[in-house]
Amino acid sequence: MDVTRFETHPSRYKHWKLATAGETATLTMAVDGDHPHKPGYELKLNSYDLSVDIELADAIQRLRFEHPEVKALTITADLDRVFCSGANIYMLGLSTHSFKVNFCKFTNETRLYLEDAGANSGLGTLCACKGTTAGGGYELALACDEVMLVDDGNSAVSFPETPLLAVLPGTGGLTRLVDKRKVRRDRADVFCTTAEGIKGKRAKEWGLVDHVVSRSSWDKTLGERAQALAAKQTVTRGPAFVLPALEPKLTSTSIEYRYVKLTVNAGDRTANLMIEGPEWAEEPEKVAAAGTEPWALRAFRELDDALLHLRFDLPDIGMVTVRTQGAPGLVKQCDELLAKSTTGFAREVRLLQRRVLKRFDNTARSFYAVADDPKSCFEGVLLELALAADRFYMLIDGDAKIGVATSIANAGFMTMSSGLSRLEARFYGEPDRVPKILLPCRLKRPRSSAWRRSRPMTSTSRTSCGSPSRNAPRCRRMR
Amino acid sequence: MDVTRFETHPSRYKHWKLATAGETATLTMAVDGDHPHKPGYELKLNSYDLSVDIELADAIQRLRFEHPEVKALTITADLDRVFCSGANIYMLGLSTHSFKVNFCKFTNETRLYLEDAGANSGLGTLCACKGTTAGGGYELALACDEVMLVDDGNSAVSFPETPLLAVLPGTGGLTRLVDKRKVRRDRADVFCTTAEGIKGKRAKEWGLVDHVVSRSSWDKTLGERAQALAAKQTVTRGPAFVLPALEPKLTSTSIEYRYVKLTVNAGDRTANLMIEGPEWAEEPEKVAAAGTEPWALRAFRELDDALLHLRFDLPDIGMVTVRTQGAPGLVKQCDELLAKSTTGFAREVRLLQRRVLKRFDNTARSFYAVADDPKSCFEGVLLELALAADRFYMLIDGDAKIGVATSIANAGFMTMSSGLSRLEARFYGEPDRVPKILLPCRLKRPRSSAWRRSRPMTSTSRTSCGSPSRNAPRCRRMR
Repeated sequence: MDVTRFETHPSRYKHWKLATAGETATLTMAVDGDHPHKPGYELKLNSYDLSVDIELADAIQRLRFEHPEVKALTITADLDRVFCSGANIYMLGLSTHSFKVNFCKFTNETRLYLEDAGANSGLGTLCACKGTTAGGGYELALACDEVMLVDDGNSAVSFPETPLLAVLPGTGGLTRLVDKRKVRRDRADVFCTTAEGIKGKRAKEWGLVDHVVSRSSWDKTLGERAQALAAKQTVTRGPAFVLPALEPKLTSTSIEYRYVKLTVNAGDRTANLMIEGPEWAEEPEKVAAAGTEPWALRAFRELDDALLHLRFDLPDIGMVTVRTQGAPGLVKQCDELLAKSTTGFAREVRLLQRRVLKRFDNTARSFYAVADDPKSCFEGVLLELALAADRFYMLIDGDAKIGVATSIANAGFMTMSSGLSRLEARFYGEPDRVPKILLPCRLKRPRSSAWRRSRPMTSTSRTSCGSPSRNAPRCRRMR
Repeated sequence: MDVTRFETHPSRYKHWKLATAGETATLTMAVDGDHPHKPGYELKLNSYDLSVDIELADAIQRLRFEHPEVKALTITADLDRVFCSGANIYMLGLSTHSFKVNFCKFTNETRLYLEDAGANSGLGTLCACKGTTAGGGYELALACDEVMLVDDGNSAVSFPETPLLAVLPGTGGLTRLVDKRKVRRDRADVFCTTAEGIKGKRAKEWGLVDHVVSRSSWDKTLGERAQALAAKQTVTRGPAFVLPALEPKLTSTSIEYRYVKLTVNAGDRTANLMIEGPEWAEEPEKVAAAGTEPWALRAFRELDDALLHLRFDLPDIGMVTVRTQGAPGLVKQCDELLAKSTTGFAREVRLLQRRVLKRFDNTARSFYAVADDPKSCFEGVLLELALAADRFYMLIDGDAKIGVATSIANAGFMTMSSGLSRLEARFYGEPDRVPKILLPCRLKRPRSSAWRRSRPMTSTSRTSCGSPSRNAPRCRRMR
């Protein structure tokens, strides 16, 4: 299978330079025009394509896991008069509709991950725009906690897409302008129809940027702002964990990882996604401290990579069955141990699971979860996959060995983009059922008729309370 | 100008029969296949086109104003095995993209008006589907308070759009299914991919309909449900007011009503919309009781009609300037008198103003409000037009006679589709300014520096407190 390589490493970056120094880090955009994602165009003036964004996504992920000492990230560029001129329009001109949709989705997810790092991981972000900041370049800036623009009488932020190309900004720019930064709508209208953009004092007055700084005081102010941003962070970080390579095994019909396998049937445009459960009840820090990647992290990084291959490399696959396999009770126990941990590492793992599940939600294929084997383990965080799927089918097995179980992972932390948990979304019309379904996760109790009544799926008698190995430890409801 | 006729009257209906009987009314769909909106297709099996929906919109409007005694409306059909087979696909096949967008927008607005009547006007609605209810036919049913489906082993509700035509239901069907009726998402997925739809007990169990009724007990149940729906209504209605015809004067470049004039400049793809303010401070019931249509109703019905012409008949007009003209203070006084009235008629007028303003919000043209004349009167409910426009420009006049003023109409009742008032939307990033801007509406006070600081527009010194005729009566904040 000919696939895009989403895995990279700072040592192999072609378009960015990542440097850390104590509590701050700097990510410098230095796009190498001669290394586009595909031949046929040149990446001039720090314009970007998928390759550039894959490296950005990798850098953000590594800062979260590998550099817990960093509390403020500055994103800047190595050019003197240009920060970033946005997505490369020649690349867009050469791309299929499907690629463009998936490219914009991926770039927006990367920007959402920057915002997630600022909101939940104690990693503040500052965009230092020392020159032209146009289109997708300004959309990247908008995703940061603070935006600093040079005041040189020339450098502006702009959305030239509408006046020059008659399209709308494709990576959430207008939404962030109005809903996040709360720029007045009439000003946003003027701004996004003015090709040359807005600079200087007016850019600050309209809320388009947070700081307007002269060239002479640029470096000093930048250092001060980064330090101030770092000083504001209060979230526990670490311990550090170096993310190992995934290096899936590719065949003509499959992509195989340690816990995840995507098998393609091109003829009927279907695929099957198999996720294996953990091998034992892991304590995440202990496993990580021993240099091994815990299942809770590894399996979801693999799933994330598989979803990206599905989006970009398998555009003709319309229908994906999702299956799980593992020993009963272990997912639930791993969820509990992960939720109990108060380290920054455990929180990063849960945040990553949440991001991957959102990427699953927003992957535009028909997903059917299938529990047709007694070995299936749609429990806890893996039950989220079944709840995220368009449909969930379960075999009516004679000896009633196929079942599902909830855990603390279903109790509210794993929100969808709507802010609802997947159980809340599924039982949107019957909100009273959600706490009942979560009950076995909260209380140690024998199977009861009340629980049978409240099961979400109807063909099973094995529940989270049904087998001794599944007796639930006590757990908090998370929201 | 060759224009669509949006005005009609029950005496001229070709596709519906409206009958009232005490507290209940029945609107029977009996589409005349030989009278499509445009030649080229036949309206078989109660399929509909714009003509059919224009009559439906007229019927709902007249029930609200002319028949305050009616508390429950039954929508049904005169065919034995078909309720409605949805929008006519041959008509859609012959239509331009622009027409299809505006057709779907109009049909959805009509359905929103049905829901508005149920929620705010004490007019409950029951859809009686005694046969096939497909596509837009089921979308119409979903807009009613209750849906009753015949249980004859054959009649189903369905969304065949996706499996048969590979398009999505175009009039809010999936949204109403999931967000309004709270049908479980996986069931909605099965439903909208099953061409033949779902019938009988399963339709009720899945929440697709409220009642499943046999043919033998159909008429009896229908009568009982309509009576029960009428008995639930508690909102004050009336007095009745018969809506006079608008009958605008058409020239080659304009549509002219009593208070509204739309003037087109086809060459540069622009138009100007002029709205004149009231001639005196009307007490709406007194004016209506004398057989005259109050300005508050007439001007907004005219504006509504003009917006529909703009959408359907003037697709090439990209830019519309919006101006107002009138004596200062009168709009504000009319707003106050209308808000003070506790009759159902006054409430209907305000609800109509709100609907028209939403139609203005959702008319996809660039609107620029312009106050360039001392006679302009962007006050109260007319200020909403300036707030709804993409931009609002005001002339810096030497003698500072051009100004704006708030009234109780800006204080929260005139919500946008988002649920925010237009002042709340404009000052989304500065919510504290909204009560300050509304202050002159609440308190009688001389012009002060505090008020000058809080004005939304910057080039005027005439405010709602600025001239003696504008001294504001005391008024309640409405939310």
